[in-house]
Amino acid sequence: MSSAFNGGVSFVVFGESHGSGIGIVLDGLPPGEKIDLEKTGVFMARRAPRKDGTSTRREESDVPEILSGLYNGKTSGTPLCAIIRNAGQRSADYEKITRGNVLPRPGHADYTGHIRYGGHNDARGGGHFSGRLTAPLCFAGSVCGQILERRGVTTGAHIYSVGNAEDEPFDPVCVSENELNAVKARYLPLLNAEKDDEMRRIIGRAQKNGDSVGGIIECCAVGVPAGVGSPMLDGLENVIARLIFAIPAVKGIEFGAGFAAAKMKGSRNNDEFYVKDGEVLTKTNNHGGILGGISSGMPIIFRAAVKPTPSVALPQKTVDLSDGTEAVIKIAGRHDPCIVPRAVPAVEAALNVALLSLM
Amino acid sequence: MSSAFNGGVSFVVFGESHGSGIGIVLDGLPPGEKIDLEKTGVFMARRAPRKDGTSTRREESDVPEILSGLYNGKTSGTPLCAIIRNAGQRSADYEKITRGNVLPRPGHADYTGHIRYGGHNDARGGGHFSGRLTAPLCFAGSVCGQILERRGVTTGAHIYSVGNAEDEPFDPVCVSENELNAVKARYLPLLNAEKDDEMRRIIGRAQKNGDSVGGIIECCAVGVPAGVGSPMLDGLENVIARLIFAIPAVKGIEFGAGFAAAKMKGSRNNDEFYVKDGEVLTKTNNHGGILGGISSGMPIIFRAAVKPTPSVALPQKTVDLSDGTEAVIKIAGRHDPCIVPRAVPAVEAALNVALLSLM
Amino acid sequence: MSSAFNGGVSFVVFGESHGSGIGIVLDGLPPGEKIDLEKTGVFMARRAPRKDGTSTRREESDVPEILSGLYNGKTSGTPLCAIIRNAGQRSADYEKITRGNVLPRPGHADYTGHIRYGGHNDARGGGHFSGRLTAPLCFAGSVCGQILERRGVTTGAHIYSVGNAEDEPFDPVCVSENELNAVKARYLPLLNAEKDDEMRRIIGRAQKNGDSVGGIIECCAVGVPAGVGSPMLDGLENVIARLIFAIPAVKGIEFGAGFAAAKMKGSRNNDEFYVKDGEVLTKTNNHGGILGGISSGMPIIFRAAVKPTPSVALPQKTVDLSDGTEAVIKIAGRHDPCIVPRAVPAVEAALNVALLSLM
Amino acid sequence: MSSAFNGGVSFVVFGESHGSGIGIVLDGLPPGEKIDLEKTGVFMARRAPRKDGTSTRREESDVPEILSGLYNGKTSGTPLCAIIRNAGQRSADYEKITRGNVLPRPGHADYTGHIRYGGHNDARGGGHFSGRLTAPLCFAGSVCGQILERRGVTTGAHIYSVGNAEDEPFDPVCVSENELNAVKARYLPLLNAEKDDEMRRIIGRAQKNGDSVGGIIECCAVGVPAGVGSPMLDGLENVIARLIFAIPAVKGIEFGAGFAAAKMKGSRNNDEFYVKDGEVLTKTNNHGGILGGISSGMPIIFRAAVKPTPSVALPQKTVDLSDGTEAVIKIAGRHDPCIVPRAVPAVEAALNVALLSLM
Repeated sequence: MSSAFNGGVSFVVFGESHGSGIGIVLDGLPPGEKIDLEKTGVFMARRAPRKDGTSTRREESDVPEILSGLYNGKTSGTPLCAIIRNAGQRSADYEKITRGNVLPRPGHADYTGHIRYGGHNDARGGGHFSGRLTAPLCFAGSVCGQILERRGVTTGAHIYSVGNAEDEPFDPVCVSENELNAVKARYLPLLNAEKDDEMRRIIGRAQKNGDSVGGIIECCAVGVPAGVGSPMLDGLENVIARLIFAIPAVKGIEFGAGFAAAKMKGSRNNDEFYVKDGEVLTKTNNHGGILGGISSGMPIIFRAAVKPTPSVALPQKTVDLSDGTEAVIKIAGRHDPCIVPRAVPAVEAALNVALLSLM
Repeated sequence: MSSAFNGGVSFVVFGESHGSGIGIVLDGLPPGEKIDLEKTGVFMARRAPRKDGTSTRREESDVPEILSGLYNGKTSGTPLCAIIRNAGQRSADYEKITRGNVLPRPGHADYTGHIRYGGHNDARGGGHFSGRLTAPLCFAGSVCGQILERRGVTTGAHIYSVGNAEDEPFDPVCVSENELNAVKARYLPLLNAEKDDEMRRIIGRAQKNGDSVGGIIECCAVGVPAGVGSPMLDGLENVIARLIFAIPAVKGIEFGAGFAAAKMKGSRNNDEFYVKDGEVLTKTNNHGGILGGISSGMPIIFRAAVKPTPSVALPQKTVDLSDGTEAVIKIAGRHDPCIVPRAVPAVEAALNVALLSLM
Repeated sequence: MSSAFNGGVSFVVFGESHGSGIGIVLDGLPPGEKIDLEKTGVFMARRAPRKDGTSTRREESDVPEILSGLYNGKTSGTPLCAIIRNAGQRSADYEKITRGNVLPRPGHADYTGHIRYGGHNDARGGGHFSGRLTAPLCFAGSVCGQILERRGVTTGAHIYSVGNAEDEPFDPVCVSENELNAVKARYLPLLNAEKDDEMRRIIGRAQKNGDSVGGIIECCAVGVPAGVGSPMLDGLENVIARLIFAIPAVKGIEFGAGFAAAKMKGSRNNDEFYVKDGEVLTKTNNHGGILGGISSGMPIIFRAAVKPTPSVALPQKTVDLSDGTEAVIKIAGRHDPCIVPRAVPAVEAALNVALLSLM
Repeated sequence: MSSAFNGGVSFVVFGESHGSGIGIVLDGLPPGEKIDLEKTGVFMARRAPRKDGTSTRREESDVPEILSGLYNGKTSGTPLCAIIRNAGQRSADYEKITRGNVLPRPGHADYTGHIRYGGHNDARGGGHFSGRLTAPLCFAGSVCGQILERRGVTTGAHIYSVGNAEDEPFDPVCVSENELNAVKARYLPLLNAEKDDEMRRIIGRAQKNGDSVGGIIECCAVGVPAGVGSPMLDGLENVIARLIFAIPAVKGIEFGAGFAAAKMKGSRNNDEFYVKDGEVLTKTNNHGGILGGISSGMPIIFRAAVKPTPSVALPQKTVDLSDGTEAVIKIAGRHDPCIVPRAVPAVEAALNVALLSLM
């Protein structure tokens, strides 16, 4: 299936931004796991549009309805389907661009989707390629996260950077469960709360200019036992990367030292082993908790690069697909000047699915 | 299967570094495609150890034997199996570390593989996690590449950087088939041949110090028509990333502007459309030829970060897994001071498989 | 995914008999295919309970709601989700057996599902194992069938036997598109309409006795070109069989001469080739249109054995899973005395999915 | 992959009858399992041609070479590759039919394979469709069987019938481990040894007449705990059927009462539950140990219909594919007059893979 992941945990995401609804079928969950739908709501609210200037004001009613797979508040073991109705779309916003199949927006999948599906896809608001499709992913991530928690695994993510403003990074050796939980509760998920103002200023300025700005998200898991993952194609890096690139706007991923490792000497990049309380650990964590695709027991750490929201208010050149002439498009709707804060839970969700799938 | 890829083209890689042999079963190839085994040999020779100081001198006899799937020099349509015998391993080198299951080498998968398989895996020389397993991948990449060529697609890769030395990047808009073919023929695959000396110096210095150095590989495909790839989990980015992380030592991947996009404004990162001779093109190519996981018709460009070879001659701290005490390991064998040049064809191979699989 | 099929066409079925709803996500459909939902309704009505004595009178509102994947009446190319709400269940009927997790009904999956899911599954009315889950399969089958029709493929099925009463078989060489379409329109899908009375009598008698009766369904496709299917695990027989056994109550399948071939000599069972109007055909069709898993161009024919409905009114011995004691169960609800007529479209649906998936 | 099975245990089979070699890559085996290659040889010998009149005298050297995945006699956990060289083929036999791509043999996959692969496949001796490809399946079945044995599961199969001669069936309730092991040791695997003569006579007569004869194989597993299998598409019936139809010549499969259930009343076909020593059992076993695709703890029983060997010495009509004219073919080589005895271990092997994969 084209929008599906198959593993120990499997899912397929369906829906279009302006169709009847979107949703997910999630399978492979162990039976008898209590799922707290209030917690799921809190997780998904982190992805919802902010009420301030940092994101779009389009109202999204993202409360999922569970059709199957939950029984008496617990996973039944059979496929879990959750659907989210589409509502409140200001279709006037999309008037001029009724269809991305006519005037493809630069930086969006309008043009490539049009070619891929011979013009038959529902391109309104991005259709199946819309960032809205990360809502079901967040639902899945929350469900998997609750199960992981009971197995001693905690995950979390923060805004590593927006434009040129940088948060503090996770300490790759000492990052703790508490830190990961604390950062989730923040409006802008930052480790260093003093960076909040700077980030807002950068986002606000982009918005005022009819522009947008990108950033980097750093994500981490602690409590993953050594030995999770399989060689070559089903390692943690392969699976996490495959899931992370399901999030629109992600253009890069690096694990541990990542691209910085390319400049290091081996003697510095290698993480030496030692023993503490009978446990094998490494003194540094340039490997990001993964060697040969398999977890080492150290914190799993990766960063994902998020491009600036392609929907900008400034006029942009495009092509009228109905007649092949060049045209100018001005995107009228309200759009996120920076998608990074809302992408944070989606990145965390992808990690949760990957981990539960491989454990 | 744990070392397998499933798609339009599928494969499974098998073997251990010091077992009887390694190989691949490759399936999904269109029938009737002529495969020039001489060309396959040339491709694989690019991965073979160099005769100079830039790589290990262990002799590898990497001429694959085809057991099935080729008939009268053409693909038969049924699974193609190629095997490569293991020979020439200087087992004395591995004497002290007879088994990575006892003294895991830092930066290698010895420790994680040991835990994953309960100590039952063949860890000699890295076993199934050895870089040697990229030989079958290169074989598959060459086969797929020959078929892609007939469909107008050319791929190529070069050393983007080694340590702090940088080659020129591909021109993301104008890169040509000729350029891609030319760089393959070079001993060190560099666009700017004048960088050759500097790179060798860096690698040579690392070797003299008993150390190693990492780098970045840039890879490109031209001639891919618009519309290749599927949304969310089966997009070009998902599939390429999944395959690239099958190459040991890769710790990051970025498409188009990649991590640099995180610092850009949307107005600059977006690639505007225009029409030329009836074809829809973009003036810039920050999207790396991929929007929403689907090809736009522009060159596909990505970079992979390669960590420094973990096998360094310097003594390193580790843990003796037989008794849980701390120990020091000194890796005696001859090892690549820089794996980057030999990883170049593996990266190209991964792209070839991804492209043919999705086309 | 556990209730999923992956191929050229893929789907996952979700839901439980007495939960909020059931449904399907269907993917891999070619974009731009017009889907007539009225035809889909007619197909699904063939599966619906009959208003006479041959089936249960429980009202099922099986009109699916399409959430995604259809745009302007055509397939969009992205995953199609259809849901069907559960309603009208007479929960009083299930009072004593509130949960198959307590008093498993003989012949049902109550006991095995209970063990499989550690008692956490929703076993009311059979839960995820209910025959009701064939409704989404029929939906998928109708969608695929409409697309197949445009490619010149027609499928159909009839009641081959009920108890000891037998219909005429399809002529394996001459069966025509018209015949296949005609039999679908009949209340009891029989080739020989004169058998109608006998079949009803057998079913009626079983019902009067608080009992049930099984039968055999014969299914056929004409217009399938030669060359469809792949060797060993992905042949037509493998794929059709895998899908047919998704229908509860099916306990056997045979292709062409099937079990009768086991008694034949090779000289009689082999179908000799001849040429007619430049086309290669066989004079007989004991191979059921499939050789080596691949279509020969002759009609594809198979039969599926359907066991008698396990829900009978007579008291049956079972075990109280709450305390491990033996018990007697009397199933009070209204149940089909013979599931065969309603299973006919499900069998046809499975064939449609298999064929479109492999073409 | 086209000749591949994916599950808890996965494999891909490769090779052509007259190419360099055939083999299998088997993955998903638990690490650390001792594999006795002598036992594997005994299992495969059961599939080898008999030295008497019941099978072909072509010599097959079916001793597999293990290339990977076994370390110190135990499974390493990484993919296990076994190859078998092709040798001793009397190519003169295939002279006239150098290629099934020219004169397709009735009842074989020559014609369908030719169309499927556009004439590019290696059709000599059946190529990838040859019964010889069941040798790797038997290897896999033996490996899985040794692991199953340690988990308390025993499987076995016997000749249920050849032509009109029938062996005794397994007692579906009381069949024992000992019985299953005993029948394997017999030259013709029959429960009632007195049937040996009759079977040989039937096979001998067919051979003398230049003809062949089919039969039915019954297969059983005892010791499978309740709860193995998943609903709808991944139930035991789906998976076993998919694997069994990988064996050339199988045209039907039925579980438990199978086709006979179609004539039964529900009150007779249902297997009532009772308790014995705290275990839930059924008094009868018409369900063949499977309800809703999931094991009940009772013996798993199924029968597979095997068509008569399509290679008969009698002249047969076919079509010359090189010019489209009708032709007569006379198959000169030595061929099995009855493939049933040699197919018995292949059926058992398929069950072993299915069971280990789902457990």
